[in-house]
Amino acid sequence: MSPSVRDCLVSAPGKAILHGEHAVVHGKVALAVSLNRRTYLHLKATSDGTVCINLPNIDTFLCWNLSELKQLLEAGQRLDFDLLKRLRDFMGLTNGNLDTSNMATLTFLYIYMSLFGSGELPSLKVSVWSELPTGAGLGSSAAYSVCLAAALLCASGAIPAPLKEWDHTCRWHQEDLELINSWAFQGEMIIHGNPSGVDNTVGTWGGMLRFLAGKIIPLSRVPLIRILLTNTKVPRSTKVLVARVKDRINKFPPIMIPVLDTVDAVSSTCEKVLTEMTREPITGEHYNTLEELIDINQHLLNVMGVGHPALDMVCRVTLAKGLHSKLTGAGGGGCGITLLRPETDSAIIQSTMQDLKDCGFDCWETSIGGPGVQQHSPFSIKEEILEILNRYGVPRVTEQEDGLTL
Amino acid sequence: MSPSVRDCLVSAPGKAILHGEHAVVHGKVALAVSLNRRTYLHLKATSDGTVCINLPNIDTFLCWNLSELKQLLEAGQRLDFDLLKRLRDFMGLTNGNLDTSNMATLTFLYIYMSLFGSGELPSLKVSVWSELPTGAGLGSSAAYSVCLAAALLCASGAIPAPLKEWDHTCRWHQEDLELINSWAFQGEMIIHGNPSGVDNTVGTWGGMLRFLAGKIIPLSRVPLIRILLTNTKVPRSTKVLVARVKDRINKFPPIMIPVLDTVDAVSSTCEKVLTEMTREPITGEHYNTLEELIDINQHLLNVMGVGHPALDMVCRVTLAKGLHSKLTGAGGGGCGITLLRPETDSAIIQSTMQDLKDCGFDCWETSIGGPGVQQHSPFSIKEEILEILNRYGVPRVTEQEDGLTL
Repeated sequence: MSPSVRDCLVSAPGKAILHGEHAVVHGKVALAVSLNRRTYLHLKATSDGTVCINLPNIDTFLCWNLSELKQLLEAGQRLDFDLLKRLRDFMGLTNGNLDTSNMATLTFLYIYMSLFGSGELPSLKVSVWSELPTGAGLGSSAAYSVCLAAALLCASGAIPAPLKEWDHTCRWHQEDLELINSWAFQGEMIIHGNPSGVDNTVGTWGGMLRFLAGKIIPLSRVPLIRILLTNTKVPRSTKVLVARVKDRINKFPPIMIPVLDTVDAVSSTCEKVLTEMTREPITGEHYNTLEELIDINQHLLNVMGVGHPALDMVCRVTLAKGLHSKLTGAGGGGCGITLLRPETDSAIIQSTMQDLKDCGFDCWETSIGGPGVQQHSPFSIKEEILEILNRYGVPRVTEQEDGLTL
Repeated sequence: MSPSVRDCLVSAPGKAILHGEHAVVHGKVALAVSLNRRTYLHLKATSDGTVCINLPNIDTFLCWNLSELKQLLEAGQRLDFDLLKRLRDFMGLTNGNLDTSNMATLTFLYIYMSLFGSGELPSLKVSVWSELPTGAGLGSSAAYSVCLAAALLCASGAIPAPLKEWDHTCRWHQEDLELINSWAFQGEMIIHGNPSGVDNTVGTWGGMLRFLAGKIIPLSRVPLIRILLTNTKVPRSTKVLVARVKDRINKFPPIMIPVLDTVDAVSSTCEKVLTEMTREPITGEHYNTLEELIDINQHLLNVMGVGHPALDMVCRVTLAKGLHSKLTGAGGGGCGITLLRPETDSAIIQSTMQDLKDCGFDCWETSIGGPGVQQHSPFSIKEEILEILNRYGVPRVTEQEDGLTL
């Protein structure tokens, strides 16, 4: 009989780079902010001797017999990359087979086995649903890893469940967040190989953080700012874009080195303005400056060669409504963010979103600077999200001999 | 009986700023190039005791009796701004009345009176026709002043007529060019008040020049490069745009100061590439670099806040055909230039020009880096241009009492 664990409902935000993408690769400041499109995870104890994961976004529903998983654990051995290797073998993942579903499954099993492997493996099922598109640079994998880490740590008793009866949502204490973040980072390592750690840190702490020379500094307070988030759905490779910027720097050092300094100054100026906005009454001038910085940086990203006609289109369509946009993340496609002012009215927002959708883009109204990982009562989550989380597919119990059945 | 002067047919090119517009105001390098859209001037001796000017581009045809003009000269007095004042009074130009036609006429009379005033005023007529739009930042006033200076200096005998019988076109020697340029600069002062001297220097020497901290250095050799020149016809004020950049520098010094350094490096890199192109076989890589520099600078000009949706449109329309464009001059409307590669074929050029015209823009195929002021034989000028130059309107002899009759 496997031990029973605590049920747990958690969420973690995505992330957007507000300023400093690409420049950060060359030792300059970047500002990353939480994006209030969230990933939700429901962990439920079960008693059927299996562990299941349900990822409706990517049509993944898998279960494993605990008895088979137990065979992967070697008593007394420290859990580490050997476990990861055994899990890969178990799942039949040879080098080539690294799609989103496999990576997500591997990450789940790795954290699950790591946290519970020293005792009895509990029977449970985990269901995750995300408002974030995958592969769009919005930290969807980190939000997933943060949720997994928080829920499994909480289920295992390694961290408390902070939610009181009367709470709708609740956050963990600093030291618990640090533990969640370190496990989420391991998840990111499985998925990305060599992650910066920015995405899981934003997913854990929320708000805004300054990233400089590998150091990640969460900022104490930032205002909540409304934005439109637009996914051009133009696929791009971050690696190719980073290489493109590097090539341009190598080709034109006297031109590109001051460009990086300029971007650095944009990030610092933006941080200063956002800090001011938490300390003094917010004025139109604050927003004017944020808009100017967005325009300036969008053009600088074009100087670096990471623009795309679809991103130009986002800027043009939104500017026609008086709204200012920039790409966020690697560029070359992917997503753009559009600043909404407090006085921007709903009719403008709706018509702008319609215009963007008419271009074939996905577009959401959301905000940046919101909270990091949270525990939820079911009442604090939209009905339709709960429904999705509780709608499990037909479990396909995998056979070790055949590898992963998809 | 007034003295007879030499007939003279001359032309001078317009100018475009290749790189460094705006940055030049803040002590950085700019590269100005000759634009092979030219202004043509035909000076003919007459014997009717009048001096006439015919400017078909701006519907101006005026004649004056030499006897009236003579009254403005004071024997022995040095010709200077007093003459200018007397001419303004003569023409009835009080402060407000400074349209293109008046400025062009005043400039003509000033140079004419200055060069001939110490002897007898010759009877002559001057006809000028330009391929350059006025007020578009393409140096049309300087090309006009350069032509006037060259033709009137030549007619007066102050410089020789370099054209030999068998020549089609011919250029003056260095010291003659310096004299032409100094008189053209006086013309520019009448028209613009406080000109930089760049436009008349390009009009006189042609090719390319480096402009830095008020110093103008003509560069020895540059390749002839084909371009499209597009006039968006969006009106703009250079003064307002210069002030806008200054405001942005004052608002965000740490951001904007490195931007100016970047533009400076773009100009220097471009100069280096163009110099290389005169010293070694021209390769596709040279053109790739020129294209990249154009893209980079266009985005930097947007960072400075001097872009315009019409200029973005020029860039987008041409990029759709694989061609790279930037604004030239003050921005905020006005003109854009598009680089044509040696291998860009005529069908592409024609369809791009059609697309630009469909946007409501004027568009010409031309080149940069061509010769400065030239004397022409009639055979070296297109038939239709000669025809326009020789098609005089009905002379309207002005009455001193009524001021200028338009």
